[in-house]
Amino acid sequence: MTTTLDTMRAFARRAKDAARVMASATTAQKNDALFAIAKALRQATPAILEANALDLADAKAAGKNAAFVDRLLLDSARVEAMAKAVEAVAALEDPIGEVTSSWRRPNGLEVRKVRLPLGVVLMIYESRPNVTSDAAALCLKSGNVAMLRGGSEAFRSSRAIADAVTQGVERAGLPKDAVLLVPDTSRESMLALLTLDGLIDLCIPRGGEGLIRFVAENARVPVVKHYQGVCHVYVHGDADLAMAERIVVNAKASRPGVCNAMECLLVDAAVAERALPQLSRALVAKQVELRGCAETVRILRAAGVPVNAASDGDFGHEFLDLIAAVKVVPGLDGALDHIAKYGSEHTEAIVTASRDAARRFTREVCASAVVVNASTRFNDGGELGLGAEVGISTSRLHAFGPMGLKELTAQKFVVEGDGQVR
Amino acid sequence: MTTTLDTMRAFARRAKDAARVMASATTAQKNDALFAIAKALRQATPAILEANALDLADAKAAGKNAAFVDRLLLDSARVEAMAKAVEAVAALEDPIGEVTSSWRRPNGLEVRKVRLPLGVVLMIYESRPNVTSDAAALCLKSGNVAMLRGGSEAFRSSRAIADAVTQGVERAGLPKDAVLLVPDTSRESMLALLTLDGLIDLCIPRGGEGLIRFVAENARVPVVKHYQGVCHVYVHGDADLAMAERIVVNAKASRPGVCNAMECLLVDAAVAERALPQLSRALVAKQVELRGCAETVRILRAAGVPVNAASDGDFGHEFLDLIAAVKVVPGLDGALDHIAKYGSEHTEAIVTASRDAARRFTREVCASAVVVNASTRFNDGGELGLGAEVGISTSRLHAFGPMGLKELTAQKFVVEGDGQVR
Repeated sequence: MTTTLDTMRAFARRAKDAARVMASATTAQKNDALFAIAKALRQATPAILEANALDLADAKAAGKNAAFVDRLLLDSARVEAMAKAVEAVAALEDPIGEVTSSWRRPNGLEVRKVRLPLGVVLMIYESRPNVTSDAAALCLKSGNVAMLRGGSEAFRSSRAIADAVTQGVERAGLPKDAVLLVPDTSRESMLALLTLDGLIDLCIPRGGEGLIRFVAENARVPVVKHYQGVCHVYVHGDADLAMAERIVVNAKASRPGVCNAMECLLVDAAVAERALPQLSRALVAKQVELRGCAETVRILRAAGVPVNAASDGDFGHEFLDLIAAVKVVPGLDGALDHIAKYGSEHTEAIVTASRDAARRFTREVCASAVVVNASTRFNDGGELGLGAEVGISTSRLHAFGPMGLKELTAQKFVVEGDGQVR
Repeated sequence: MTTTLDTMRAFARRAKDAARVMASATTAQKNDALFAIAKALRQATPAILEANALDLADAKAAGKNAAFVDRLLLDSARVEAMAKAVEAVAALEDPIGEVTSSWRRPNGLEVRKVRLPLGVVLMIYESRPNVTSDAAALCLKSGNVAMLRGGSEAFRSSRAIADAVTQGVERAGLPKDAVLLVPDTSRESMLALLTLDGLIDLCIPRGGEGLIRFVAENARVPVVKHYQGVCHVYVHGDADLAMAERIVVNAKASRPGVCNAMECLLVDAAVAERALPQLSRALVAKQVELRGCAETVRILRAAGVPVNAASDGDFGHEFLDLIAAVKVVPGLDGALDHIAKYGSEHTEAIVTASRDAARRFTREVCASAVVVNASTRFNDGGELGLGAEVGISTSRLHAFGPMGLKELTAQKFVVEGDGQVR
């Protein structure tokens, strides 16, 4: 253990030293590096695909399923998309140095809050190799050092990508340690990294709930967590039902495996007799299995719509599949209570024409995104206009919701005077 | 252990339930509660002083030193000051509901970021009983539930203060669990609380370094840390020496026991022969012991100013006393290197008439407050205009520097549309 810890500490120390240089890098230097990275990725396509083929062969030999293999797979189009994503980050505004507010004190002191990088950001992720270049680009543009710890299944792919990234960084004259791939994918080395408070300024785990809980329980460094997305759509008594149908179908069925997909439909008792059959038929037409409360089952069976009886465990559950829990709620208060009890503070939506209902819902629901008359699927850095995201935080500290470049910064006070003392 | 953990979990569950009500409390309700708390504190003065007398008697019997007893001591003037501090929080702007930014997306979605409370804030502190009412007021105004875990030495005082606070909260019609004093000051119960991720949204430890390290090492809930203040004043070659003298003396000697006091004076080699004797005489006149580098010792001995040779451990050390380390540095780069190596990212100051030096210093120094031509002592919530502070964060995540009401909030995305889907 001591050896791994020592190795990881020395590794993190290199990152910390590079962080001081990166904090002072100009926007032009950082953009030069991003364009050089994109170019190096394109040039390295054969090497990246060769490395990826080895990872793929091992994954298939190990009997990994098709979804896993697809997440791991790279082809020249995917490498080109990675290069384009890096160039897109160059086009985003540099958050470093932004003065977010400023004021003057009665004694003449001038105070301003100025954005600076967080320092060293440790990304822990699983089998998607493109996270290597995506995270590197976002950290670099925000003046941070990226320490990247990918999964062992994608290690050779990540290594080949990281090599190209480092070439680009060096060609632009920035420190080569600005992006560091952790050379060891053992659990021991991850545990060691998670204890390096003072060297690692933030850890962002991305992956399954098991990985995130493991990191949260073992980390002494700050962690921004992304747990589940148990997202609800509440169809209020004053909803436009055609709009509700469009939103509910999109929220559930457009991409059921992602965290901003709807997992539970709440229908107001005032419109349930009419709305439930319409919404449910539209979901069933998309191959969605419905698991309803007793009232839902009564109404849908009477209307001849296929439905199963929900068990208690179906509410508050993240299916990540073509399954939806359905519940009839007695008005807005009932919806708010259900969401407070079963929601995961990720994304919650209401469909309503009532201004009062929309106002109460947006004020009283605690979630990283509270949505009125639109799909839950919009809780995404790109869709909300953040440009790109490094993850979605479901804890309220530091960042809540999609994390873009600004969420990879801190703010310091700069105080200027002409000799003031207390 | 199970029993303590169960008890603490049930306790935190009460806090979490109250947090949902507090998140929707109006500014008027919260201000009513603050005024009612101030009134209840004044009315309870005899009971508070009686409880405090018991704590004091125990502290003296246990042989605690004078500084400890003074921190613990309450008298009617100090209780009145506590009541006034609570009323001052009522006068601060309510951060909840503030729209910090808003924009429209190409598809017509309107997005805004809105401040909401963090939820349940656990304050862990030692022997100052006034923290009980100060922290309660700041948490309440920012819509959070305050869970207060004071030290055992001040427990009876804190209990009496918390009882008055609860009376005020209830008179204003807010949930009585909005402010909760942890009824048990054992280390076991603190450890149990620190594991309650999901129930406690933030822990702020205030006290000695030992307490803060204990919390940081054992917490699974998010922690905002305040470690040391190893603050430097760098007197640049272009400094006005009269101004430098005023600032250095104020930074070191006005209150040497606090975290924003100067611990190390850096003097530019370009002016050391002239500046060092002048600055040092002024410090010595305030009874400050100087511990200098070899060059400092040479210059001061030649000038007949008393100085001791610094050991390596004196640089980067937080004396919290009338002692200062002193070093001659070869220009701005030397000062920046010294601060990067030995500073604690708390407060760093430069005295200079040079615009270029000030610009580089404010850009390149990473500290919660970077100060030009003013005393380090201004790194304080009140002095910087935040109104009041719940602590000073020296880690960059979530908050960096003094934490006022805004730093006790999170921000959610509110997204309004008219039927948009992806």
